Amino acid sequence: MASQPNILYFQVDNLGCGELSCYTGGPFRGTWTPHIDEFARGGTRLTNFAPEAQCTPSRSALLTGRHAIRSGTHSVPIGAEAGWGLVRWERTLADALSEAGYACAAYGKWHVGEGPGRWPTDKGFDEWYGPPRTYDEALWPADPWYDPARDPVSRMLEIRKGQAAPDEREQLTLDVRRDCDAEYLKRTNDFITRCVDNGAPFFVYFNHSLMHMPVLPRKEFEGRTGNGPWADSLAELDADFAQLLALLEATGVRDNTIVVFAGDNGPEEVTAWRGSPGAWRGSYFAGGEGNLRTPCIVQWPGQIPSGQVSNDIMHITDWFTTLLGAAGVHVPTDRVIDGVDQRAWLTGEAAHSQREGYLYWMGAELYGVKWRDFKLVLVQQLHLSDPPQRLATPRVINLLTDPHEREAFALPHLHSWTASHFNRLMAEFAESVKREPLTPAGAPIGHVP
Amino acid sequence: MASQPNILYFQVDNLGCGELSCYTGGPFRGTWTPHIDEFARGGTRLTNFAPEAQCTPSRSALLTGRHAIRSGTHSVPIGAEAGWGLVRWERTLADALSEAGYACAAYGKWHVGEGPGRWPTDKGFDEWYGPPRTYDEALWPADPWYDPARDPVSRMLEIRKGQAAPDEREQLTLDVRRDCDAEYLKRTNDFITRCVDNGAPFFVYFNHSLMHMPVLPRKEFEGRTGNGPWADSLAELDADFAQLLALLEATGVRDNTIVVFAGDNGPEEVTAWRGSPGAWRGSYFAGGEGNLRTPCIVQWPGQIPSGQVSNDIMHITDWFTTLLGAAGVHVPTDRVIDGVDQRAWLTGEAAHSQREGYLYWMGAELYGVKWRDFKLVLVQQLHLSDPPQRLATPRVINLLTDPHEREAFALPHLHSWTASHFNRLMAEFAESVKREPLTPAGAPIGHVP
Repeated sequence: MASQPNILYFQVDNLGCGELSCYTGGPFRGTWTPHIDEFARGGTRLTNFAPEAQCTPSRSALLTGRHAIRSGTHSVPIGAEAGWGLVRWERTLADALSEAGYACAAYGKWHVGEGPGRWPTDKGFDEWYGPPRTYDEALWPADPWYDPARDPVSRMLEIRKGQAAPDEREQLTLDVRRDCDAEYLKRTNDFITRCVDNGAPFFVYFNHSLMHMPVLPRKEFEGRTGNGPWADSLAELDADFAQLLALLEATGVRDNTIVVFAGDNGPEEVTAWRGSPGAWRGSYFAGGEGNLRTPCIVQWPGQIPSGQVSNDIMHITDWFTTLLGAAGVHVPTDRVIDGVDQRAWLTGEAAHSQREGYLYWMGAELYGVKWRDFKLVLVQQLHLSDPPQRLATPRVINLLTDPHEREAFALPHLHSWTASHFNRLMAEFAESVKREPLTPAGAPIGHVP
Repeated sequence: MASQPNILYFQVDNLGCGELSCYTGGPFRGTWTPHIDEFARGGTRLTNFAPEAQCTPSRSALLTGRHAIRSGTHSVPIGAEAGWGLVRWERTLADALSEAGYACAAYGKWHVGEGPGRWPTDKGFDEWYGPPRTYDEALWPADPWYDPARDPVSRMLEIRKGQAAPDEREQLTLDVRRDCDAEYLKRTNDFITRCVDNGAPFFVYFNHSLMHMPVLPRKEFEGRTGNGPWADSLAELDADFAQLLALLEATGVRDNTIVVFAGDNGPEEVTAWRGSPGAWRGSYFAGGEGNLRTPCIVQWPGQIPSGQVSNDIMHITDWFTTLLGAAGVHVPTDRVIDGVDQRAWLTGEAAHSQREGYLYWMGAELYGVKWRDFKLVLVQQLHLSDPPQRLATPRVINLLTDPHEREAFALPHLHSWTASHFNRLMAEFAESVKREPLTPAGAPIGHVP
């Protein structure tokens, strides 16, 4: 199976469209990102790549090919006890790829479940190292009000196939958080080198910790840009990604590896480390266009043309279906899959994306529907901490004429005919829920929808 | 004087940073702008080009090299009677260039004065055709409440050197407004052809009517993009500019012509024809960063390198000084000139702009000060129709960390040391006003400051 392409999925945390210089950031954020820019020139860059609204649902959507609302993973668990997340019945990208002979590793935050049957090794990965939840918890040890004897202690975890439970590693402190990506890189280096030596195709699911708060550059990047820790961290992100590309070159597999560089949702919002949605508005955990788009760039030598830019819609679930297709693996037919195969479009056989729109949720609540350049807003909320407003009369926004989403009425046309498309997309979803009920959040491991 | 470079200053009306595809628009606004993009690749593109806040002050600042507050032209006159604008004492770019042997023509809106001694031919131009004020007035004839027998009638005007007053031409209707740029192009074609035949260096001050409301594409562009009149008009703007470049090629003067493509302020705001500030926020007639930046691209073959992009600050007054320098003409020394000569930077001799910041006004009120990536906000107002808020405590905004200007405090550093730079810039201005008092708005033609 040596012809199976390797897959490196490089997922960036809380990356708005206003950060990278190949999007609308760069000098406006204090640094160019030359390696990512060069990668974009050599690949296809998407400007309408839709993640889900938060870290957890985006990760589960990518891994299952299903909107997170289906699998009970629509929300980041706050202070969750062990035993939450994807149920046993859910099959991930790594499940399918490992059955097809791929070696699969995950590094960085997992965030789609904890407890027996929910670890990465239960979901198709051969090994994993990272935090089970997220980096906020690195703020705990330095918090004067925190008492590790009384309060939970957050640790990095490590597990390999065959272990019943992960080993507990170092406590998640600011220092550990700062340096964690170097550890992920080191482990990725070991893993890919081993795979290449063994001649096994690999799938590396690399979850970089930046630009998630607290945003701290490693020591070697501190002061690099002269524009503060955010810009230094962007420089670090750029260099870390370049390091992985160099690894693929050095091991001779670059030409047979699909590399996806993608964000997991819109920008970080917490003031001390606030990201930028660029020409859109809004932050993660909300419904503004700033959270419905995140950078996504792909290279697949010989298959996907270089130098392309597209504003057609691709949804994060589409990577599940597209990557399985690229690996020659059948997509499961015993469940609802939301992802569509985008190979025809990405390789240039088809002129356009195979998708016209999608529904979007924040937590368990349907916030709206996208159809081409139009948006039906049911619940209005631009930023994480804004109070959500359920609109008495939904809004239709034409994003071409109102990209900053300021107006209640899309004058002069109103575009009320678009309701037909929004209704169709919502009806398709409702019909799919009749076929397969939604798994509730907190469902036990043995739950079957 | 054949070695004197020709100058084509192509000024676009109300062009935000979110329109052109070489800035952050293009597909997000419904069309690519391929000719302007190609022009940018062949020249130097500025992402921190600062106009003044409105049409009138930007035009007077460009023409005089002086902040409009100095010349009493800080505001668009609303319903002005004849007899307003630049006083006789003010010397324009065209005054200086025509004395140096240039043939000078202005097309499109003038908007820096009306009445005896205030027409373009009183200010150095050999000829002019256009509306004296602005395109809003094209809405009058179709307004049911308007009565041309009772109310003013707005007309296109035309004047040539030697005439005492302009000839009145067609009434400014929606049809005339829609087609006016074709007329400006035709006249520019005639003028440049004549100049080239005569061997005279020329200065064409071309004021395109787009993207000023009402935004209407000419018939041949209607439906061109399938994305409505705004996108069709962007396509028209792109094609019109290309037509002028082709004219320079056809007449064999492209290599000896400085071409500046620049906006006059931030985006149009009126809802029916709203522009986009791209990754900034705010509209024209306000103090948001969206109104402190407008696209600016320059080509000067053999002098200014191609393919450059810079986020250093250039102010619209700098073009006065820079273009005079390029033409080998002395900058007036008998008055305060705010523009600095940017040739060293633009040609690549100096690494950076010769300017660190500037003061900005809205009307007669000082709204704030820019210094590098920092902004001191005295009066906060993002959009044309927002009520201005004079801040009890001015804000310092670090535009790298808060590009959307959302926070009252630039944490964690506050950056209060920047006050020293803001104060220095304000003190320099105050000192200049002691040397040369401000001319009040409405000053008589003979006023001398």
